Amino acid sequence: MIRREDGAGGKYMSEFLKKRIFSRIDSSAGEIALSDMEDSADFDNAYVLTTDSYTAYPPVFRGGSIGSLAICGTANDLAVVGAEPAFMSLAFIIQEGFEDSVFERIMDDIAYWVEKIGVRIITGDTKVVEMNAGIFVNTSGIGMRNEHLERNLEAIKEHRDYPFRWVRDSGLRAGDEIIVSGTIGEHGLTMLLEREDLGFEIDIKSDVQPVWFAVRDALDVGGIVAMKDPTRGGLAETLNEMAEKSGVGIKIDEERVPVRDDVAGVCEALGLDPLTLANEGKVVLGVVNELAEDVLKALRMHDKNAEIIGYATDEFKEVVVETRIGTTKILPPPVMDPIPRVC
Amino acid sequence: MIRREDGAGGKYMSEFLKKRIFSRIDSSAGEIALSDMEDSADFDNAYVLTTDSYTAYPPVFRGGSIGSLAICGTANDLAVVGAEPAFMSLAFIIQEGFEDSVFERIMDDIAYWVEKIGVRIITGDTKVVEMNAGIFVNTSGIGMRNEHLERNLEAIKEHRDYPFRWVRDSGLRAGDEIIVSGTIGEHGLTMLLEREDLGFEIDIKSDVQPVWFAVRDALDVGGIVAMKDPTRGGLAETLNEMAEKSGVGIKIDEERVPVRDDVAGVCEALGLDPLTLANEGKVVLGVVNELAEDVLKALRMHDKNAEIIGYATDEFKEVVVETRIGTTKILPPPVMDPIPRVC
Repeated sequence: MIRREDGAGGKYMSEFLKKRIFSRIDSSAGEIALSDMEDSADFDNAYVLTTDSYTAYPPVFRGGSIGSLAICGTANDLAVVGAEPAFMSLAFIIQEGFEDSVFERIMDDIAYWVEKIGVRIITGDTKVVEMNAGIFVNTSGIGMRNEHLERNLEAIKEHRDYPFRWVRDSGLRAGDEIIVSGTIGEHGLTMLLEREDLGFEIDIKSDVQPVWFAVRDALDVGGIVAMKDPTRGGLAETLNEMAEKSGVGIKIDEERVPVRDDVAGVCEALGLDPLTLANEGKVVLGVVNELAEDVLKALRMHDKNAEIIGYATDEFKEVVVETRIGTTKILPPPVMDPIPRVC
Repeated sequence: MIRREDGAGGKYMSEFLKKRIFSRIDSSAGEIALSDMEDSADFDNAYVLTTDSYTAYPPVFRGGSIGSLAICGTANDLAVVGAEPAFMSLAFIIQEGFEDSVFERIMDDIAYWVEKIGVRIITGDTKVVEMNAGIFVNTSGIGMRNEHLERNLEAIKEHRDYPFRWVRDSGLRAGDEIIVSGTIGEHGLTMLLEREDLGFEIDIKSDVQPVWFAVRDALDVGGIVAMKDPTRGGLAETLNEMAEKSGVGIKIDEERVPVRDDVAGVCEALGLDPLTLANEGKVVLGVVNELAEDVLKALRMHDKNAEIIGYATDEFKEVVVETRIGTTKILPPPVMDPIPRVC
């Protein structure tokens, strides 16, 4: 039986994909293979392709909708390999009887973000089916090579070899700094609070937004050797993937991880770790040590909460967190979403 | 409320798309716009992009599975604009508790057709959700310009102007011949009989297969000015779309439409018109009169049942069928699937 954890990001999903999928159909059209499990894969030197099916529930929530996720999320998967979002497909599977007004709101969000990002939706598909799951949206995206990415690769080469033509999950080396582009946990917590009235008075909304504009300016500074958007499984999943693929350890200073006080408070009350909550408008960057402060400055022009939260190291292979009280603990990859259907 | 017919191909779906979607996000990256509702849309002169979410029920059926549909169907949407299937994304939404053995069978079919077509799956996504709908598969495909398409465009120009760089739905003119690449109705009827035991003893299976190899050889002959795969809504939907977009009428000789005798018999008993049943391995071509016989010969090397079934005309704007008994009738576009979740 297919289990929830087989599709939840994290360790079990990775095992599922290896056993069931990559064993049969692994391939590539450039330097990034399907089994590399990167956010996008390149073709024809000039382009990358990504796909994502959005199953978020509820489909409309504070700060956005499944429509915002479908456009921003896919644009973000392009941005984190250093590609400029260019073209998208848009495919709906809608439950028969779905509310018109909810669909209209989803389409409004799609139109808003398409315009804002400057991406073009050139092809689509619509299916209406009997089911009990509301609406699913798939977007596939095509991103382009661009001058910002080229500048980044040039800048890296002044400091060390970088064997890739795109920004890869596996690009970290000991000494690289780890930066997060803003506060974390808001999307995941919003989705949880949308589903159940847990009695918290907290003014919170999803952080869903495109990261391309901040990424573009960071690439112009240069030195970015690894990048991911911390969605399902949050920072814990993202950092573990980067560490494992790069063959390094990562040391994080918990005190420097930007979390809003009220978010931290609700998480503590609920027994949730903000490091495992999904984000939909943030990016984690690995940057060569010499350029990290300049990249941070560029990111802070977009979000003052951007922060250097740790560094890559050869001393161990795990993600290790130094806590506020001075102890250290291993931050494991989440085995599954703490909150399902979060994106 | 979203209605079944809003996502069923045909007239209501077209109205739904215009009102709800194209009013907000229409765009293009080349000559084919989203609102052209073609099977694929071009970008960068060299490529086309298509997307399709497959919701077929049951997910495994005689002759194939939702996996076969996801690979062949998307490859076929590329082929009918004259593009060579090159790269694909693959995204699953799977019901929690879905049977392993069914998933394995779907993956086997995916691997089989990926190999056969020579397409590369370079990126993917997997979500597992609570729902009552089994499995959905989205594939987006990228197709390439190729020498066969160029030869086709050259050959057309010896006979008339053709203002397009890809093979378009809207390319028909009065006098063009209409060809179908083999017998019709088998996929739709198979799906119906898989769902209910209606007591028919018929040895039938889905025709799901890639059309690219036959299309490639037809393009080498040249003169193909319009092309579509007659999936949802069957030949009736496809011919009406071609006629409307091209601003011509189409006259079809019912006697020449290839339908297996047993398929015709079951359809008659059930009150179904084979012209409205879905196909997943056939193509309808509009060909300049002078080259139609040669294109037919090339297609018959792949399927001896390929046939010239009619022609485009300026005398009327509808699709008109001359029946076996010598009367004529208008063949309207189906308002919705006779059989839902057929692909």
